[in-house]
Amino acid sequence: MKVVSTAKSHGGVQGVYSHASETTACDMTFAVFVPPQANEGPRPVLWYLSGLTCTHANVMEKGEYRRLASELGLIVICPDTSPRGETVPDEKDNWQFGCGAGFYLDATQEPFKRNYHMYSYLTEELPALIAREFPADMSRQGIFGHSMGGHGALTIALKNPDRFRSCTAFAPIVEPMTAGWSRPALEKYLGPDEAAWRAYDASALIEDGRRFPEFLVDQGTADGFLQEGLRPWLLEEACQKAGIPLTLRMQEGYDHSYFFISSFMDDHLRWHAERLG
Amino acid sequence: MKVVSTAKSHGGVQGVYSHASETTACDMTFAVFVPPQANEGPRPVLWYLSGLTCTHANVMEKGEYRRLASELGLIVICPDTSPRGETVPDEKDNWQFGCGAGFYLDATQEPFKRNYHMYSYLTEELPALIAREFPADMSRQGIFGHSMGGHGALTIALKNPDRFRSCTAFAPIVEPMTAGWSRPALEKYLGPDEAAWRAYDASALIEDGRRFPEFLVDQGTADGFLQEGLRPWLLEEACQKAGIPLTLRMQEGYDHSYFFISSFMDDHLRWHAERLG
Repeated sequence: MKVVSTAKSHGGVQGVYSHASETTACDMTFAVFVPPQANEGPRPVLWYLSGLTCTHANVMEKGEYRRLASELGLIVICPDTSPRGETVPDEKDNWQFGCGAGFYLDATQEPFKRNYHMYSYLTEELPALIAREFPADMSRQGIFGHSMGGHGALTIALKNPDRFRSCTAFAPIVEPMTAGWSRPALEKYLGPDEAAWRAYDASALIEDGRRFPEFLVDQGTADGFLQEGLRPWLLEEACQKAGIPLTLRMQEGYDHSYFFISSFMDDHLRWHAERLG
Repeated sequence: MKVVSTAKSHGGVQGVYSHASETTACDMTFAVFVPPQANEGPRPVLWYLSGLTCTHANVMEKGEYRRLASELGLIVICPDTSPRGETVPDEKDNWQFGCGAGFYLDATQEPFKRNYHMYSYLTEELPALIAREFPADMSRQGIFGHSMGGHGALTIALKNPDRFRSCTAFAPIVEPMTAGWSRPALEKYLGPDEAAWRAYDASALIEDGRRFPEFLVDQGTADGFLQEGLRPWLLEEACQKAGIPLTLRMQEGYDHSYFFISSFMDDHLRWHAERLG
Protein backbone atom coordinates (compact mmCIF):
# COMPACT_ATOMS: atom_id res chain seq x y z
CA MET A 1 0.00 0.00 0.00
CA LYS A 2 1.29 3.43 -0.97
CA VAL A 3 0.44 6.62 0.94
CA VAL A 4 -0.69 9.19 -1.63
CA SER A 5 -1.39 11.95 0.91
CA THR A 6 -2.40 12.52 4.52
CA ALA A 7 -3.77 15.61 6.23
CA LYS A 8 -4.87 16.22 9.77
CA SER A 9 -8.57 17.08 9.87
CA HIS A 10 -11.02 17.44 12.74
CA GLY A 11 -8.49 15.86 15.07
CA GLY A 12 -8.11 12.73 12.91
CA VAL A 13 -6.23 11.91 9.74
CA GLN A 14 -7.71 12.02 6.22
CA GLY A 15 -5.51 9.89 4.02
CA VAL A 16 -5.48 8.79 0.40
CA TYR A 17 -3.82 5.47 -0.45
CA SER A 18 -3.22 3.31 -3.49
CA HIS A 19 -2.27 -0.30 -4.13
CA ALA A 20 -1.90 -2.75 -6.96
CA SER A 21 -5.14 -4.74 -6.85
CA GLU A 22 -5.15 -8.37 -7.96
CA THR A 23 -8.93 -8.44 -8.09
CA THR A 24 -9.29 -5.56 -10.54
CA ALA A 25 -5.89 -6.04 -12.22
CA CYS A 26 -4.99 -2.37 -11.89
CA ASP A 27 -3.89 0.21 -9.33
CA MET A 28 -6.73 1.25 -7.05
CA THR A 29 -6.95 4.44 -4.99
CA PHE A 30 -9.08 4.90 -1.87
CA ALA A 31 -9.53 7.38 0.98
CA VAL A 32 -9.61 6.55 4.69
CA PHE A 33 -10.46 8.84 7.56
CA VAL A 34 -9.11 7.65 10.90
CA PRO A 35 -10.63 9.38 13.94
CA PRO A 36 -8.54 10.44 16.95
CA GLN A 37 -9.99 7.66 19.14
CA ALA A 38 -8.04 5.11 17.04
CA ASN A 39 -4.98 6.01 19.14
CA GLU A 40 -6.63 4.11 21.98
CA GLY A 41 -7.77 1.04 20.05
CA PRO A 42 -9.56 -0.31 16.97
CA ARG A 43 -12.60 1.62 15.75
CA PRO A 44 -15.73 0.62 13.80
CA VAL A 45 -15.54 0.85 10.03
CA LEU A 46 -18.03 2.65 7.81
CA TRP A 47 -17.84 2.13 4.03
CA TYR A 48 -19.08 4.91 1.75
CA LEU A 49 -19.70 3.93 -1.88
CA SER A 50 -19.91 6.78 -4.37
CA GLY A 51 -22.06 7.35 -7.43
CA LEU A 52 -21.52 7.41 -11.18
CA THR A 53 -18.55 9.50 -12.41
CA CYS A 54 -17.08 9.79 -8.90
CA THR A 55 -13.70 8.75 -7.56
CA HIS A 56 -12.76 8.43 -3.88
CA ALA A 57 -12.25 12.21 -3.87
CA ASN A 58 -15.77 13.57 -4.35
CA VAL A 59 -17.19 12.55 -0.98
CA MET A 60 -13.84 13.16 0.71
CA GLU A 61 -14.01 16.78 -0.43
CA LYS A 62 -17.75 17.48 -0.33
CA GLY A 63 -19.34 14.87 1.95
CA GLU A 64 -18.75 16.71 5.25
CA TYR A 65 -18.36 13.49 7.24
CA ARG A 66 -15.20 14.19 9.22
CA ARG A 67 -16.53 16.44 11.99
CA LEU A 68 -19.06 13.93 13.26
CA ALA A 69 -17.06 10.79 12.37
CA SER A 70 -14.32 12.27 14.53
CA GLU A 71 -16.78 12.82 17.38
CA LEU A 72 -18.32 9.34 17.03
CA GLY A 73 -14.99 7.58 16.51
CA LEU A 74 -15.78 6.09 13.10
CA ILE A 75 -13.25 5.06 10.46
CA VAL A 76 -14.72 6.10 7.09
CA ILE A 77 -13.50 4.36 3.94
CA CYS A 78 -14.23 5.86 0.52
CA PRO A 79 -13.23 3.53 -2.35
CA ASP A 80 -13.18 4.35 -6.03
CA THR A 81 -16.21 3.44 -8.16
CA SER A 82 -14.45 1.27 -10.77
CA PRO A 83 -11.10 0.02 -11.99
CA ARG A 84 -9.13 2.64 -13.91
CA GLY A 85 -6.08 2.96 -16.12
CA GLU A 86 -4.87 2.70 -19.67
CA THR A 87 -5.32 -1.06 -19.78
CA VAL A 88 -8.89 -0.96 -18.44
CA PRO A 89 -11.61 -1.11 -21.15
CA ASP A 90 -13.87 1.91 -21.07
CA GLU A 91 -16.47 3.84 -23.05
CA LYS A 92 -15.07 7.33 -22.77
CA ASP A 93 -18.19 9.18 -23.87
CA ASN A 94 -20.57 7.13 -21.71
CA TRP A 95 -20.74 8.28 -18.09
CA GLN A 96 -23.11 5.44 -17.22
CA PHE A 97 -20.71 2.63 -18.10
CA GLY A 98 -17.05 1.71 -17.71
CA CYS A 99 -14.64 3.85 -15.68
CA GLY A 100 -16.54 5.63 -12.92
CA ALA A 101 -19.45 3.23 -13.38
CA GLY A 102 -18.41 -0.16 -12.02
CA PHE A 103 -21.87 -0.84 -10.52
CA TYR A 104 -20.23 -2.78 -7.63
CA LEU A 105 -20.51 -6.08 -9.49
CA ASP A 106 -18.22 -8.83 -10.83
CA ALA A 107 -18.35 -8.70 -14.63
CA THR A 108 -18.47 -12.00 -16.50
CA GLN A 109 -18.27 -10.70 -20.08
CA GLU A 110 -15.37 -9.82 -22.35
CA PRO A 111 -13.58 -7.43 -22.37
CA PHE A 112 -14.75 -6.30 -18.93
CA LYS A 113 -14.29 -9.43 -16.84
CA ARG A 114 -10.57 -8.93 -16.37
CA ASN A 115 -10.91 -5.67 -14.41
CA TYR A 116 -14.50 -5.00 -13.42
CA HIS A 117 -14.67 -6.96 -10.16
CA MET A 118 -15.72 -4.25 -7.75
CA TYR A 119 -17.94 -6.63 -5.76
CA SER A 120 -15.07 -8.98 -4.92
CA TYR A 121 -12.68 -6.09 -4.50
CA LEU A 122 -14.92 -4.46 -1.90
CA THR A 123 -15.90 -7.63 -0.07
CA GLU A 124 -12.54 -9.43 -0.09
CA GLU A 125 -9.34 -7.70 -1.16
CA LEU A 126 -9.90 -4.19 0.20
CA PRO A 127 -11.31 -5.30 3.60
CA ALA A 128 -8.26 -7.55 4.06
CA LEU A 129 -5.98 -4.61 3.28
CA ILE A 130 -7.89 -2.32 5.64
CA ALA A 131 -7.74 -4.91 8.44
CA ARG A 132 -3.98 -5.20 7.94
CA GLU A 133 -3.09 -1.52 7.60
CA PHE A 134 -5.54 0.44 9.76
CA PRO A 135 -6.74 0.37 13.40
CA ALA A 136 -10.06 -1.11 12.26
CA ASP A 137 -12.46 -3.27 14.26
CA MET A 138 -13.69 -5.44 11.38
CA SER A 139 -16.33 -7.03 13.62
CA ARG A 140 -18.16 -3.69 13.51
CA GLN A 141 -18.80 -2.61 9.91
CA GLY A 142 -21.48 -0.48 8.35
CA ILE A 143 -22.01 0.53 4.72
CA PHE A 144 -23.68 3.42 2.95
CA GLY A 145 -23.55 5.21 -0.36
CA HIS A 146 -25.07 7.56 -2.88
CA SER A 147 -26.94 6.80 -6.12
CA MET A 148 -25.00 3.96 -7.80
CA GLY A 149 -23.16 3.73 -4.48
CA GLY A 150 -26.48 3.41 -2.68
CA HIS A 151 -27.20 0.49 -4.97
CA GLY A 152 -23.79 -0.90 -4.05
CA ALA A 153 -24.42 -0.48 -0.33
CA LEU A 154 -27.87 -2.11 -0.46
CA THR A 155 -26.82 -5.09 -2.58
CA ILE A 156 -23.57 -5.72 -0.69
CA ALA A 157 -25.37 -5.51 2.67
CA LEU A 158 -28.15 -7.85 1.50
CA LYS A 159 -25.57 -10.43 0.41
CA ASN A 160 -23.42 -10.02 3.53
CA PRO A 161 -25.77 -9.49 6.47
CA ASP A 162 -23.33 -11.19 8.85
CA ARG A 163 -20.58 -8.73 7.98
CA PHE A 164 -22.51 -5.45 8.13
CA ARG A 165 -24.53 -4.26 11.10
CA SER A 166 -25.98 -1.21 9.36
CA CYS A 167 -26.84 0.02 5.87
CA THR A 168 -28.16 3.38 4.69
CA ALA A 169 -28.33 5.19 1.37
CA PHE A 170 -28.71 8.62 -0.20
CA ALA A 171 -30.88 8.57 -3.33
CA PRO A 172 -29.99 4.97 -4.22
CA ILE A 173 -30.58 3.12 -7.47
CA VAL A 174 -32.81 0.36 -6.12
CA GLU A 175 -33.75 -1.67 -9.20
CA PRO A 176 -31.23 -1.29 -12.06
CA MET A 177 -32.66 -4.33 -13.89
CA THR A 178 -35.81 -2.47 -14.85
CA ALA A 179 -34.51 1.02 -15.67
CA GLY A 180 -33.88 1.75 -19.33
CA TRP A 181 -30.66 3.66 -18.67
CA SER A 182 -29.00 0.95 -16.51
CA ARG A 183 -30.03 -2.20 -18.38
CA PRO A 184 -27.36 -1.76 -21.10
CA ALA A 185 -24.64 -1.63 -18.41
CA LEU A 186 -25.86 -4.84 -16.77
CA GLU A 187 -26.00 -6.56 -20.14
CA LYS A 188 -22.47 -5.51 -21.09
CA TYR A 189 -21.02 -6.54 -17.73
CA LEU A 190 -23.12 -9.67 -17.10
CA GLY A 191 -24.43 -10.91 -20.43
CA PRO A 192 -27.96 -11.16 -21.83
CA ASP A 193 -29.31 -13.67 -19.27
CA GLU A 194 -31.20 -11.50 -16.80
CA ALA A 195 -31.13 -14.22 -14.16
CA ALA A 196 -27.50 -13.23 -13.57
CA TRP A 197 -28.49 -9.60 -13.03
CA ARG A 198 -30.61 -10.40 -9.98
CA ALA A 199 -27.50 -10.74 -7.79
CA TYR A 200 -26.90 -7.01 -8.33
CA ASP A 201 -30.39 -5.60 -7.93
CA ALA A 202 -31.61 -4.72 -4.42
CA SER A 203 -35.29 -5.32 -5.14
CA ALA A 204 -34.60 -8.67 -6.84
CA LEU A 205 -32.29 -9.78 -4.02
CA ILE A 206 -35.04 -9.14 -1.50
CA GLU A 207 -37.58 -10.93 -3.73
CA ASP A 208 -35.15 -13.85 -3.91
CA GLY A 209 -35.02 -14.12 -0.14
CA ARG A 210 -32.09 -12.00 0.93
CA ARG A 211 -32.68 -10.06 4.15
CA PHE A 212 -31.15 -7.24 6.19
CA PRO A 213 -32.31 -5.97 9.60
CA GLU A 214 -33.33 -2.47 8.45
CA PHE A 215 -32.52 0.35 6.04
CA LEU A 216 -32.48 4.15 6.15
CA VAL A 217 -32.90 5.92 2.79
CA ASP A 218 -32.98 9.67 2.15
CA GLN A 219 -34.28 10.87 -1.21
CA GLY A 220 -34.63 14.45 -2.44
CA THR A 221 -37.92 15.36 -4.09
CA ALA A 222 -36.17 17.74 -6.53
CA ASP A 223 -33.77 15.03 -7.70
CA GLY A 224 -33.79 14.94 -11.50
CA PHE A 225 -33.15 11.18 -11.50
CA LEU A 226 -35.98 10.33 -9.12
CA GLN A 227 -38.70 9.24 -11.54
CA GLU A 228 -36.78 7.16 -14.06
CA GLY A 229 -33.48 6.30 -12.42
CA LEU A 230 -34.03 5.89 -8.70
CA ARG A 231 -37.70 5.08 -7.93
CA PRO A 232 -37.37 4.37 -4.19
CA TRP A 233 -40.99 3.18 -4.09
CA LEU A 234 -39.80 -0.05 -5.70
CA LEU A 235 -37.52 -0.70 -2.72
CA GLU A 236 -40.35 0.30 -0.39
CA GLU A 237 -42.62 -2.27 -2.05
CA ALA A 238 -39.99 -5.02 -1.88
CA CYS A 239 -39.21 -4.25 1.78
CA GLN A 240 -42.89 -4.18 2.69
CA LYS A 241 -43.50 -7.58 1.12
CA ALA A 242 -40.43 -9.03 2.84
CA GLY A 243 -41.05 -7.42 6.21
CA ILE A 244 -37.79 -5.45 6.17
CA PRO A 245 -38.14 -2.18 8.09
CA LEU A 246 -37.30 0.70 5.73
CA THR A 247 -37.14 4.31 6.87
CA LEU A 248 -37.64 6.17 3.60
CA ARG A 249 -37.49 9.93 4.02
CA MET A 250 -38.54 12.07 1.06
CA GLN A 251 -36.62 15.31 1.58
CA GLU A 252 -38.55 18.25 0.18
CA GLY A 253 -36.69 20.35 -2.39
CA TYR A 254 -33.34 18.54 -2.30
CA ASP A 255 -31.56 17.51 -5.50
CA HIS A 256 -29.04 14.73 -6.28
CA SER A 257 -25.87 16.64 -5.35
CA TYR A 258 -23.46 16.71 -2.44
CA PHE A 259 -25.44 19.72 -1.18
CA PHE A 260 -28.12 17.10 -0.47
CA ILE A 261 -25.78 14.38 0.79
CA SER A 262 -23.95 16.66 3.20
CA SER A 263 -27.27 17.95 4.57
CA PHE A 264 -28.18 14.51 5.90
CA MET A 265 -24.69 13.09 6.48
CA ASP A 266 -24.97 13.61 10.25
CA ASP A 267 -28.20 11.61 10.45
CA HIS A 268 -26.61 8.70 8.60
CA LEU A 269 -23.43 8.74 10.69
CA ARG A 270 -25.49 8.68 13.89
CA TRP A 271 -27.63 5.82 12.51
CA HIS A 272 -24.51 3.76 11.87
CA ALA A 273 -22.79 4.71 15.13
CA GLU A 274 -25.82 3.58 17.13
CA ARG A 275 -25.75 0.19 15.46
CA LEU A 276 -21.97 -0.23 15.46
CA GLY A 277 -21.72 0.39 19.20
CA MET B 1 -27.71 39.54 -11.64
CA LYS B 2 -27.93 36.11 -13.22
CA VAL B 3 -28.68 32.95 -11.26
CA VAL B 4 -26.07 30.35 -12.26
CA SER B 5 -27.37 27.61 -9.95
CA THR B 6 -29.22 27.04 -6.71
CA ALA B 7 -29.47 23.98 -4.50
CA LYS B 8 -31.21 23.37 -1.22
CA SER B 9 -28.70 22.52 1.47
CA HIS B 10 -28.99 22.17 5.23
CA GLY B 11 -32.44 23.77 5.07
CA GLY B 12 -31.17 26.87 3.26
CA VAL B 13 -30.22 27.69 -0.31
CA GLN B 14 -26.69 27.57 -1.72
CA GLY B 15 -26.67 29.69 -4.85
CA VAL B 16 -24.12 30.77 -7.42
CA TYR B 17 -24.68 34.07 -9.21
CA SER B 18 -22.95 36.23 -11.78
CA HIS B 19 -23.16 39.82 -12.93
CA ALA B 20 -21.40 42.26 -15.20
CA SER B 21 -19.21 44.26 -12.84
CA GLU B 22 -18.42 47.89 -13.61
CA THR B 23 -15.66 47.96 -11.03
CA THR B 24 -13.67 45.08 -12.49
CA ALA B 25 -14.87 45.56 -16.08
CA CYS B 26 -15.73 41.88 -16.48
CA ASP B 27 -18.32 39.31 -15.44
CA MET B 28 -17.94 38.28 -11.82
CA THR B 29 -19.25 35.09 -10.19
CA PHE B 30 -19.97 34.65 -6.49
CA ALA B 31 -21.68 32.18 -4.15
CA VAL B 32 -24.26 33.03 -1.49
CA PHE B 33 -25.71 30.75 1.17
CA VAL B 34 -29.02 31.96 2.55
CA PRO B 35 -30.12 30.23 5.77
CA PRO B 36 -33.73 29.20 6.41
CA GLN B 37 -34.25 31.99 8.97
CA ALA B 38 -34.13 34.50 6.10
CA ASN B 39 -37.76 33.62 5.40
CA GLU B 40 -38.62 35.54 8.57
CA GLY B 41 -36.44 38.60 8.02
CA PRO B 42 -33.00 39.95 7.11
CA ARG B 43 -29.99 38.02 8.41
CA PRO B 44 -26.41 39.02 9.28
CA VAL B 45 -23.87 38.76 6.47
CA LEU B 46 -20.54 36.97 6.68
CA TRP B 47 -17.99 37.46 3.88
CA TYR B 48 -15.50 34.68 3.18
CA LEU B 49 -12.50 35.65 1.04
CA SER B 50 -10.58 32.78 -0.56
CA GLY B 51 -6.89 32.22 -1.17
CA LEU B 52 -4.62 32.14 -4.19
CA THR B 53 -5.84 30.05 -7.16
CA CYS B 54 -9.37 29.76 -5.74
CA THR B 55 -12.70 30.81 -7.20
CA HIS B 56 -15.99 31.12 -5.27
CA ALA B 57 -16.34 27.35 -5.60
CA ASN B 58 -13.52 25.98 -3.43
CA VAL B 59 -14.91 27.02 -0.07
CA MET B 60 -18.48 26.41 -1.25
CA GLU B 61 -17.56 22.77 -1.91
CA LYS B 62 -14.99 22.10 0.82
CA GLY B 63 -15.48 24.70 3.53
CA GLU B 64 -18.25 22.88 5.45
CA TYR B 65 -19.92 26.12 6.58
CA ARG B 66 -23.55 25.42 5.71
CA ARG B 67 -24.59 23.18 8.62
CA LEU B 68 -23.71 25.71 11.30
CA ALA B 69 -24.48 28.83 9.23
CA SER B 70 -27.94 27.36 8.82
CA GLU B 71 -28.24 26.82 12.58
CA LEU B 72 -26.90 30.30 13.41
CA GLY B 73 -28.87 32.04 10.66
CA LEU B 74 -25.90 33.54 8.82
CA ILE B 75 -25.79 34.55 5.16
CA VAL B 76 -22.37 33.50 3.85
CA ILE B 77 -20.99 35.23 0.75
CA CYS B 78 -18.05 33.73 -1.14
CA PRO B 79 -16.72 36.02 -3.88
CA ASP B 80 -14.14 35.20 -6.50
CA THR B 81 -10.49 36.11 -5.87
CA SER B 82 -9.88 38.26 -8.95
CA PRO B 83 -11.37 39.51 -12.19
CA ARG B 84 -11.41 36.87 -14.93
CA GLY B 85 -11.97 36.55 -18.65
CA GLU B 86 -10.30 36.79 -22.01
CA THR B 87 -9.91 40.54 -21.78
CA VAL B 88 -8.34 40.46 -18.31
CA PRO B 89 -4.50 40.61 -18.29
CA ASP B 90 -2.98 37.59 -16.60
CA GLU B 91 0.26 35.65 -16.14
CA LYS B 92 -0.94 32.17 -16.95
CA ASP B 93 2.05 30.31 -15.48
CA ASN B 94 2.18 32.37 -12.27
CA TRP B 95 -0.28 31.23 -9.60
CA GLN B 96 0.78 34.10 -7.33
CA PHE B 97 -0.27 36.89 -9.67
CA GLY B 98 -3.13 37.81 -11.98
CA CYS B 99 -6.26 35.66 -12.25
CA GLY B 100 -6.88 33.90 -8.96
CA ALA B 101 -4.52 36.29 -7.23
CA GLY B 102 -6.21 39.68 -7.04
CA PHE B 103 -4.85 40.40 -3.52
CA TYR B 104 -8.03 42.33 -2.67
CA LEU B 105 -6.52 45.64 -3.78
CA ASP B 106 -7.17 48.36 -6.36
CA ALA B 107 -4.38 48.23 -8.94
CA THR B 108 -2.96 51.51 -10.18
CA GLN B 109 -0.56 50.21 -12.82
CA GLU B 110 -0.99 49.32 -16.50
CA PRO B 111 -2.24 46.93 -17.77
CA PHE B 112 -3.88 45.80 -14.52
CA LYS B 113 -5.67 48.94 -13.37
CA ARG B 114 -8.62 48.43 -15.69
CA ASN B 115 -9.78 45.17 -14.04
CA TYR B 116 -7.96 44.50 -10.80
CA HIS B 117 -10.15 46.48 -8.41
CA MET B 118 -11.12 43.78 -5.94
CA TYR B 119 -10.96 46.19 -2.98
CA SER B 120 -13.57 48.53 -4.44
CA TYR B 121 -15.56 45.63 -5.83
CA LEU B 122 -15.84 44.02 -2.39
CA THR B 123 -16.44 47.18 -0.43
CA GLU B 124 -18.78 48.98 -2.82
CA GLU B 125 -20.27 47.24 -5.84
CA LEU B 126 -20.87 43.74 -4.47
CA PRO B 127 -22.28 44.87 -1.09
CA ALA B 128 -24.73 47.11 -2.94
CA LEU B 129 -25.80 44.17 -5.09
CA ILE B 130 -26.14 41.89 -2.05
CA ALA B 131 -28.22 44.49 -0.21
CA ARG B 132 -30.51 44.78 -3.23
CA GLU B 133 -30.91 41.10 -4.10
CA PHE B 134 -30.72 39.15 -0.81
CA PRO B 135 -32.45 39.24 2.60
CA ALA B 136 -29.30 40.72 4.15
CA ASP B 137 -29.04 42.90 7.24
CA MET B 138 -26.12 45.05 6.09
CA SER B 139 -25.85 46.65 9.54
CA ARG B 140 -24.49 43.32 10.77
CA GLN B 141 -21.50 42.24 8.68
CA GLY B 142 -18.48 40.10 9.51
CA ILE B 143 -15.55 39.09 7.33
CA PHE B 144 -13.11 36.18 7.27
CA GLY B 145 -10.87 34.37 4.85
CA HIS B 146 -7.99 32.02 4.17
CA SER B 147 -4.39 32.78 3.22
CA MET B 148 -4.55 35.61 0.63
CA GLY B 149 -8.23 35.84 1.67
CA GLY B 150 -7.15 36.18 5.31
CA HIS B 151 -5.02 39.10 4.17
CA GLY B 152 -8.07 40.46 2.39
CA ALA B 153 -10.27 40.06 5.47
CA LEU B 154 -7.76 41.71 7.83
CA THR B 155 -6.99 44.67 5.55
CA ILE B 156 -10.61 45.30 4.58
CA ALA B 157 -11.71 45.11 8.23
CA LEU B 158 -8.94 47.46 9.38
CA LYS B 159 -9.97 50.01 6.77
CA ASN B 160 -13.70 49.63 7.43
CA PRO B 161 -14.13 49.12 11.19
CA ASP B 162 -17.53 50.82 11.12
CA ARG B 163 -18.85 48.35 8.56
CA PHE B 164 -17.62 45.06 10.06
CA ARG B 165 -18.30 43.90 13.57
CA SER B 166 -16.05 40.84 13.41
CA CYS B 167 -12.96 39.62 11.56
CA THR B 168 -11.19 36.25 11.69
CA ALA B 169 -8.73 34.42 9.47
CA PHE B 170 -7.35 30.99 8.63
CA ALA B 171 -3.60 31.03 7.98
CA PRO B 172 -3.60 34.64 6.70
CA ILE B 173 -0.87 36.46 4.83
CA VAL B 174 -0.24 39.24 7.36
CA GLU B 175 2.60 41.25 5.85
CA PRO B 176 2.83 40.84 2.05
CA MET B 177 5.15 43.89 1.77
CA THR B 178 8.06 42.03 3.34
CA ALA B 179 7.72 38.54 1.85
CA GLY B 180 9.89 37.79 -1.17
CA TRP B 181 7.15 35.88 -2.98
CA SER B 182 4.45 38.59 -2.66
CA ARG B 183 6.50 41.75 -3.24
CA PRO B 184 6.53 41.28 -7.07
CA ALA B 185 2.72 41.15 -7.09
CA LEU B 186 2.41 44.37 -5.10
CA GLU B 187 4.91 46.09 -7.38
CA LYS B 188 3.11 45.03 -10.55
CA TYR B 189 -0.31 46.07 -9.21
CA LEU B 190 0.72 49.21 -7.29
CA GLY B 191 4.02 50.42 -8.72
CA PRO B 192 7.49 50.68 -7.17
CA ASP B 193 6.64 53.22 -4.44
CA GLU B 194 6.20 51.05 -1.34
CA ALA B 195 4.27 53.78 0.46
CA ALA B 196 1.31 52.78 -1.71
CA TRP B 197 1.61 49.15 -0.62
CA ARG B 198 0.94 49.97 3.03
CA ALA B 199 -2.80 50.31 2.38
CA TYR B 200 -2.85 46.57 1.58
CA ASP B 201 -0.67 45.17 4.34
CA ALA B 202 -2.30 44.31 7.69
CA SER B 203 0.81 44.92 9.78
CA ALA B 204 1.52 48.25 8.08
CA LEU B 205 -2.10 49.38 8.41
CA ILE B 206 -1.94 48.76 12.15
CA GLU B 207 1.41 50.54 12.37
CA ASP B 208 -0.15 53.46 10.51
CA GLY B 209 -2.92 53.75 13.10
CA ARG B 210 -5.76 51.60 11.77
CA ARG B 211 -7.61 49.69 14.46
CA PHE B 212 -10.14 46.87 14.82
CA PRO B 213 -11.75 45.62 18.05
CA GLU B 214 -10.20 42.11 17.99
CA PHE B 215 -9.08 39.29 15.72
CA LEU B 216 -9.19 35.49 15.79
CA VAL B 217 -6.52 33.71 13.73
CA ASP B 218 -6.00 29.96 13.35
CA GLN B 219 -2.71 28.74 11.90
CA GLY B 220 -1.59 25.16 11.30
CA THR B 221 1.90 24.26 12.49
CA ALA B 222 2.40 21.86 9.54
CA ASP B 223 1.53 24.56 6.99
CA GLY B 224 4.25 24.63 4.33
CA PHE B 225 3.79 28.39 3.86
CA LEU B 226 4.10 29.25 7.55
CA GLN B 227 7.74 30.35 7.77
CA GLU B 228 8.17 32.40 4.61
CA GLY B 229 4.69 33.25 3.40
CA LEU B 230 2.43 33.69 6.43
CA ARG B 231 4.46 34.52 9.56
CA PRO B 232 1.58 35.24 11.96
CA TRP B 233 4.06 36.43 14.60
CA LEU B 234 4.37 39.66 12.61
CA LEU B 235 0.65 40.32 13.09
CA GLU B 236 1.00 39.35 16.74
CA GLU B 237 3.77 41.92 17.16
CA ALA B 238 1.80 44.64 15.39
CA CYS B 239 -1.33 43.89 17.44
CA GLN B 240 0.60 43.84 20.69
CA LYS B 241 2.15 47.25 20.01
CA ALA B 242 -1.23 48.68 19.02
CA GLY B 243 -3.17 47.08 21.87
CA ILE B 244 -5.45 45.11 19.53
CA PRO B 245 -6.57 41.84 21.14
CA LEU B 246 -5.50 38.95 18.90
CA THR B 247 -6.42 35.35 19.61
CA LEU B 248 -3.75 33.47 17.66
CA ARG B 249 -4.16 29.71 17.86
CA MET B 250 -1.30 27.57 16.54
CA GLN B 251 -3.05 24.32 15.55
CA GLU B 252 -0.69 21.38 15.96
CA GLY B 253 -0.18 19.26 12.84
CA TYR B 254 -2.61 21.06 10.52
CA ASP B 255 -1.59 22.09 7.00
CA HIS B 256 -2.81 24.85 4.64
CA SER B 257 -5.70 22.92 3.05
CA TYR B 258 -9.45 22.86 3.38
CA PHE B 259 -8.98 19.87 5.68
CA PHE B 260 -7.59 22.49 8.09
CA ILE B 261 -10.12 25.22 7.30
CA SER B 262 -13.13 22.92 7.71
CA SER B 263 -11.76 21.66 11.04
CA PHE B 264 -12.05 25.11 12.59
CA MET B 265 -14.92 26.52 10.53
CA ASP B 266 -17.40 26.02 13.38
CA ASP B 267 -15.27 28.04 15.80
CA HIS B 268 -15.08 30.92 13.35
CA LEU B 269 -18.79 30.89 12.56
CA ARG B 270 -19.60 30.96 16.29
CA TRP B 271 -17.12 33.82 16.83
CA HIS B 272 -18.86 35.87 14.15
CA ALA B 273 -22.39 34.94 15.21
CA GLU B 274 -21.69 36.07 18.78
CA ARG B 275 -20.54 39.47 17.54
CA LEU B 276 -23.20 39.88 14.86
CA GLY B 277 -26.04 39.29 17.31
